[in-house]
Amino acid sequence: MTFAKFRQFLLGRPLPTKQMTEEKLSNMQGLAIFASDALSSTAYATEEILWVLVLGGIAAFSFSLPIALAISTLIIIVVISYRQTIHAYPQGGGAYAVAKANLGEYSGLVAASSLLIDYILTAAVSVAAGIAAITSAFPALYPWRVALAVLVVVFLAWGNLRGVKESGKLFALPTYFFIVSMFGIIVYGFWRFMEGTLPSLPEAAGLTAVSSVGMLLILRAFSSGCTAMTGIEATSNGVQAFREPAVKNASQTIMVMAGILVFIFLGITFLSYQMHIVPKLDETVISQAAEALFGRNIFYFLIQLATAFILLLAANTPFAGFPRVTSLLAKDGFLPRQFQQLGSRLIYANGIFILALFAIGILVFFRADTHSIIPLYAVGVFLGFTLSQLGMVRHWMRDTSGAKHNLSIFINAFGGAFTLAVFAITFIFKFEHGAWILVPAVLFLVLFMRAVRNHYISVENQLALENPVPPIPKEKTVIILVSGIHVGTLKAVEFAKTLHAAHLKAVHIAVGESPEESEAVKRHWSEHVRDVRLDIIPSPFRELTGPLIQYIQGVDRQWDNDTVIIVIPEFVPTKFWHHWLHNQTAMQIRWTLEHMEDVEIVDVPYRLR
Amino acid sequence: MTFAKFRQFLLGRPLPTKQMTEEKLSNMQGLAIFASDALSSTAYATEEILWVLVLGGIAAFSFSLPIALAISTLIIIVVISYRQTIHAYPQGGGAYAVAKANLGEYSGLVAASSLLIDYILTAAVSVAAGIAAITSAFPALYPWRVALAVLVVVFLAWGNLRGVKESGKLFALPTYFFIVSMFGIIVYGFWRFMEGTLPSLPEAAGLTAVSSVGMLLILRAFSSGCTAMTGIEATSNGVQAFREPAVKNASQTIMVMAGILVFIFLGITFLSYQMHIVPKLDETVISQAAEALFGRNIFYFLIQLATAFILLLAANTPFAGFPRVTSLLAKDGFLPRQFQQLGSRLIYANGIFILALFAIGILVFFRADTHSIIPLYAVGVFLGFTLSQLGMVRHWMRDTSGAKHNLSIFINAFGGAFTLAVFAITFIFKFEHGAWILVPAVLFLVLFMRAVRNHYISVENQLALENPVPPIPKEKTVIILVSGIHVGTLKAVEFAKTLHAAHLKAVHIAVGESPEESEAVKRHWSEHVRDVRLDIIPSPFRELTGPLIQYIQGVDRQWDNDTVIIVIPEFVPTKFWHHWLHNQTAMQIRWTLEHMEDVEIVDVPYRLR
Repeated sequence: MTFAKFRQFLLGRPLPTKQMTEEKLSNMQGLAIFASDALSSTAYATEEILWVLVLGGIAAFSFSLPIALAISTLIIIVVISYRQTIHAYPQGGGAYAVAKANLGEYSGLVAASSLLIDYILTAAVSVAAGIAAITSAFPALYPWRVALAVLVVVFLAWGNLRGVKESGKLFALPTYFFIVSMFGIIVYGFWRFMEGTLPSLPEAAGLTAVSSVGMLLILRAFSSGCTAMTGIEATSNGVQAFREPAVKNASQTIMVMAGILVFIFLGITFLSYQMHIVPKLDETVISQAAEALFGRNIFYFLIQLATAFILLLAANTPFAGFPRVTSLLAKDGFLPRQFQQLGSRLIYANGIFILALFAIGILVFFRADTHSIIPLYAVGVFLGFTLSQLGMVRHWMRDTSGAKHNLSIFINAFGGAFTLAVFAITFIFKFEHGAWILVPAVLFLVLFMRAVRNHYISVENQLALENPVPPIPKEKTVIILVSGIHVGTLKAVEFAKTLHAAHLKAVHIAVGESPEESEAVKRHWSEHVRDVRLDIIPSPFRELTGPLIQYIQGVDRQWDNDTVIIVIPEFVPTKFWHHWLHNQTAMQIRWTLEHMEDVEIVDVPYRLR
Repeated sequence: MTFAKFRQFLLGRPLPTKQMTEEKLSNMQGLAIFASDALSSTAYATEEILWVLVLGGIAAFSFSLPIALAISTLIIIVVISYRQTIHAYPQGGGAYAVAKANLGEYSGLVAASSLLIDYILTAAVSVAAGIAAITSAFPALYPWRVALAVLVVVFLAWGNLRGVKESGKLFALPTYFFIVSMFGIIVYGFWRFMEGTLPSLPEAAGLTAVSSVGMLLILRAFSSGCTAMTGIEATSNGVQAFREPAVKNASQTIMVMAGILVFIFLGITFLSYQMHIVPKLDETVISQAAEALFGRNIFYFLIQLATAFILLLAANTPFAGFPRVTSLLAKDGFLPRQFQQLGSRLIYANGIFILALFAIGILVFFRADTHSIIPLYAVGVFLGFTLSQLGMVRHWMRDTSGAKHNLSIFINAFGGAFTLAVFAITFIFKFEHGAWILVPAVLFLVLFMRAVRNHYISVENQLALENPVPPIPKEKTVIILVSGIHVGTLKAVEFAKTLHAAHLKAVHIAVGESPEESEAVKRHWSEHVRDVRLDIIPSPFRELTGPLIQYIQGVDRQWDNDTVIIVIPEFVPTKFWHHWLHNQTAMQIRWTLEHMEDVEIVDVPYRLR
């Protein structure tokens, strides 16, 4: 049992099912797990706004704070909506659950698909950006960025496979480290601003003073800054991970998170504007601000470290969210049941595997280059937001208890209209740079999930106990499949003799054999087995299953009212990879025979050492 | 049988084994199939030499023709050696067969590994270069280059899966089109040279006149030009594909190919020198020569087209060679037996699949960029050449017939020394640009092939009829595995009753079930099955196989001298992908039970519609 021991070493001892409720998150841990994605976007959201405004010249920069304020309002609106969602749908599921319940199955599946895709992209983008932050500090690591990125994904998957609570412990520290760092820089900067000693950078002087700032530019800057909103819904998908009272705890956590997010986002934007920071290719806005305030001392490096950490941790949010959504979808029959299987550490291991696999695929394909992945990112999330909020509008309108929900309807409709607009703008702006792929991807996922569900329903109906049980004839015709004559074959013959068969035969399909070789098989057989006849069937086209089916049908036709039992001698290798070293005929035969009526299959394993 | 029909439509009707000998190549077809790789390298070999010499200034260019002459001499030497190999080893296998027979197993495996790797790289490099030629002509296609490259590999795999003879037909035309184009440009250029009207390009005037040309530069230029040698061994691996007398035909074909190769290579190099052509980033040497001679008219475009074609076809050589080598290795037990399996069209389909898979992987990973792949390429091939030639030296020296082979020994030793030197130089020059990966790759392949072979030998020994046949007790204990109670389960119970069991039981492992759910299963069972007892086994850690093994061992301990038969009710989905929609427990159980002593397994399939 070496594998089991290795597994235990890697993942910790298995946890019994009854410990399920104990494996819950405190609010501090929940914040660390679910907020790192949303908070990490403050590391680049302000910069994204400035990169657009810089096109409008120095005058345009005065719009950065109003735009950030507008996005912050939107964040508050969306979070309030999700707070209402948490109360209305405490089982979790976020956009998927809300859209499905209120807008119908297809809307739910569209929301779920965009959610799943965005989780994968969050993992990939965050890892790529985090690695970029590290390789910027240590350029020698640059050639190893893809390997490093893959390593980080593997590390995150490992942490999450160990279980929810331990990942809370493992990941809480860096999140709070980032929050404290950002609060430090903002509070210190604001204090210097009040004292009138806030340093001002000279770069802005080089900008042209374009006076007319168009509406289009402001909208573009706004939609770019909306990356600050990615990840804020994560908490609503994970309500069940919180300690009881889960609804209250999750609801508090999402509000605290929104407060921190808005504070950091506005604070950084305010400081950037007051310090006249202009975005640079080779230095982030936060790095510029920290350097101007502290100089390149220990504080500066701590802030850079915290930023790199939170970006890598943001990649952890999907590892909490993705498996939850897939398990919910599996529970509803839209995804294969394996996603519902609880692992030895009470986590949905298959969701974690699939997420890690896709994230690694994207990172390798795009060479861990953030800017290549970004156009795909933060588009689907607004589709999910919109469907969720429209669903909530419907939810309030359908309430027949007589209570008035005018304010709630207004908030959700207002938020929904905004997120729809943001979705439309980001989709159009990013379409030709890769966002087009979301259309076939969502379409495929929705159709796939429908097909899975239809299959499960059909199987359930066919297996219902109301169906007649097929009669089993008492008479048995036993056919031994002989691929070669060895000690495993002889064992199978001995076993077949104990089956009380009315008719006992053996058959050999001569695939790729010369007539002389077939003759040798026949001679060999009669030397070792005296009492069972061996039929040799030629196969001119070197095909196995065709001649075999014909032979079995021919034998079956000879007698009425009998079951055909096929005995397959199999030798069992000791190591897993050895299976690939033998012609996969046993598999192929099983596949064929399983589909024949009235045929049962008996494996007689012969174990190798 | 829709799949079978689709397959026939795609691949043509299945061919009977007796047509094997009819599916042979004429010399014209053999040349087209096996020479495209070698000939295509003339499209860039001269250019590779000039790119190095340009560093030495205008004076260095006068070394291009002597270098090309040296390489041509080497080509002739290597080809003569391979001609001797074809005679000595008519079964094919080239470097692998020669090295194995004369230098031992490890040398053979090293030669085979470098051969396999180089085949994959040949396919990838040639496709990438061919697509680059096309996208240079039509820049609009550039963003689709990866997709186009993958498409070309799929197309080549398809052509080869249809069978050897048809691929000969399919691919002969473009090879001869290239040969005729090159002969045209060379003969016409030479005629103009004799008339004294050969145009001379002005670019050379811009070069500095560095007078000292170092030995290192000449060696570097020589080793760069050695790409002209890649692929010349292909014919010796495919002797068996030629019509009888195969040895004579293959031997003639390789000499004709060498003649054409040397003629084109020297011709292009001669014209380049006389026309003062300097390599350019955005235009190939051949394109410059053609344009200067003909202008941008129909002849120019035909020559460009022919060049693009031959490069894409060069990617076809591996599709002929790779499956042959893998089938040879499989025959010797060094690779899984599946590589020896003849497909419906008398080709080794699995070799073609594996080659296409790896080539596509490399093309996608390197974004179909020739220059990223090149450093890996044309290194391993010289290792193969060297081992092959040293093997031939040993071959002549071991000949005890009394005949003298002094000339043969000299040729092979001379060639071997040269190819060894080229191997050392290319490996050192390309090491840090990616060639290092060849070391672990060859090492892994050699160890893998050894392990496969050891496994096959061990299995053969264990299955030998001299081993005692394990006794089968007449008494039977039958255990029905119950995952849920449905009509398929009931059918399995009915079948189990016909097995004349001494003891008949049913067991249900309660994975992830609450006690209430387990109670419901028990109640449900007793309602439908009255005469078989169902044991419910709890599984606190949600594990299936552990509790099952314990249970079976417990039951087995109760009685002596009995066989345990496990009956597994299985429902069989109609579509292949549906298998993934059901928990893979049947597979997991089979895997576990196969390794238990004295346990036989009976599948009772219930077919879904």
